[in-house]
Amino acid sequence: DRIQEHELSASGSCTDCNRPMADKMADFALESQGASVVSTRCSETYSIGTACVTLFGFPLWYPSESPRTVIQGYAVLLPGRCWAFRGVQGTLVLALSHPVAISHVTLDHLPRYSAPTGRIDSAPRDFQVYGMQDTLDEATLLGNFTYDQEGESAQTFTIPESSSMAYRHVELRVLSNWGHMTYTCIYRFRVHGKMADA
Amino acid sequence: DRIQEHELSASGSCTDCNRPMADKMADFALESQGASVVSTRCSETYSIGTACVTLFGFPLWYPSESPRTVIQGYAVLLPGRCWAFRGVQGTLVLALSHPVAISHVTLDHLPRYSAPTGRIDSAPRDFQVYGMQDTLDEATLLGNFTYDQEGESAQTFTIPESSSMAYRHVELRVLSNWGHMTYTCIYRFRVHGKMADA
Amino acid sequence: DRIQEHELSASGSCTDCNRPMADKMADFALESQGASVVSTRCSETYSIGTACVTLFGFPLWYPSESPRTVIQGYAVLLPGRCWAFRGVQGTLVLALSHPVAISHVTLDHLPRYSAPTGRIDSAPRDFQVYGMQDTLDEATLLGNFTYDQEGESAQTFTIPESSSMAYRHVELRVLSNWGHMTYTCIYRFRVHGKMADA
Ligand SMILES: [K+]
Ligand SMILES: [K+]
Ligand SMILES: [K+]
Repeated sequence: DRIQEHELSASGSCTDCNRPMADKMADFALESQGASVVSTRCSETYSIGTACVTLFGFPLWYPSESPRTVIQGYAVLLPGRCWAFRGVQGTLVLALSHPVAISHVTLDHLPRYSAPTGRIDSAPRDFQVYGMQDTLDEATLLGNFTYDQEGESAQTFTIPESSSMAYRHVELRVLSNWGHMTYTCIYRFRVHGKMADA
Repeated sequence: DRIQEHELSASGSCTDCNRPMADKMADFALESQGASVVSTRCSETYSIGTACVTLFGFPLWYPSESPRTVIQGYAVLLPGRCWAFRGVQGTLVLALSHPVAISHVTLDHLPRYSAPTGRIDSAPRDFQVYGMQDTLDEATLLGNFTYDQEGESAQTFTIPESSSMAYRHVELRVLSNWGHMTYTCIYRFRVHGKMADA
Repeated sequence: DRIQEHELSASGSCTDCNRPMADKMADFALESQGASVVSTRCSETYSIGTACVTLFGFPLWYPSESPRTVIQGYAVLLPGRCWAFRGVQGTLVLALSHPVAISHVTLDHLPRYSAPTGRIDSAPRDFQVYGMQDTLDEATLLGNFTYDQEGESAQTFTIPESSSMAYRHVELRVLSNWGHMTYTCIYRFRVHGKMADA
């Protein structure tokens, strides 16, 4: 389930009360912290750094539009500064910075009011999250979730049956989007939980 | 006219109520979205990437001080991270990300409290905005505006006789500044409106 | 002494009231404004750009982990985007952007809730600040301070006997940290005061 903003706001100080709850939890999918993109599996349909996908009707050309954009922790989302994959289904496999017992994940998308069309039809809709011990390991389904196009920019979801099992890798599988015919964009994806004892 | 902050704040959620209204509107002059700098016209007086202009008494050397800085969407303005041109008059021609019926423009400058002198005398004062179908087209004056050195960092201005005419290019002509004798700095410029149907 | 947040909040507008006071004062240790890193003195124990220090148990590899990170003005601190030095004692010598009569300094560290362990044991604890006319000059002790691991991310300290003497260089000497055995991390350091007349 998606957690509502107000659930955490009681404990926030003035400095932090306006920020989404995801900003108050450690993110184990941050590149600066040691996480990395392992695979995009479906990468044959998207060439990093080339203009094979158009965004808003223009070729993608922004220099940092690699999947790494998703884990680089941008606090302000700029339209087009996202990882785009062709079609509505795409996969991102991440090596987390540490082994983590995962309790929540967050998906961020550009706010609608910042989108040139006022719509975010390239946003992911239904998606799944899997945990893995390593990349050759069988993936364990951690949950099915839906990003709400009417909701906040940063949406945090609770892992339904959170366990103490620590995962080193996470796979994000996007199953559908909000209507864009050509591509789907991921602005940021975060993984929260409890770091396993070393 | 410059729009006052409180006019839009009633509709803002807690997350957004502290941000300037310009942050809640799409910006069609954003590089990440597909906009680009076409020309600076008066570029003979400013060499991009070299230290021919001094800022705060020092040569400009910051690696990103090109006119592109103006459309890169920095949410936090750092002193000196701006496009400086010699003198008080300068021009920037932008190709917008999409054809747009322009309703507002925003000019951002460093807040006074962040400036080493406590003054922002290098800020633009009077400026004009023109719309063009293409760069060879005759420019249509959209409005005369004044950036207020006592006002907020991000100042949004309404185009007086906004029409449904969609423009693909915008020219910003700075006519004066707030007193700096040597150069004028532009931190950010934004273009708002309604995207034309494709 | 460390200044409490509420002391300045009365004068803040809605836009600014949630930001730390350090954000409302000019920072003369900002690279974009002309400041630079002169020396780290103890640099034999840390090789910029190589992985000789581990962070959170992983080799440091983030491309910008040079001492310059400390003066680049990042508004959002990302875990690991800091300058790390081996051990608990380290020194950073900065050339300020202008000669300044120093009234305050600010040390920023990652908020605890963003740290993977929930602890910030790599944060500086006791530190000293010195002022110098130039780098060969004898250093004048401006104050002894303690960064509070339970406090806000950005902590601003008043120089006890602030004088009108203007300094061109500042030395930050970290004397201890909050418990990390291997390294200490500096996310940001700021210098505030009154710019000397040119
Ligand atoms: K979009
Ligand atoms: K200025
Ligand atoms: K830390």
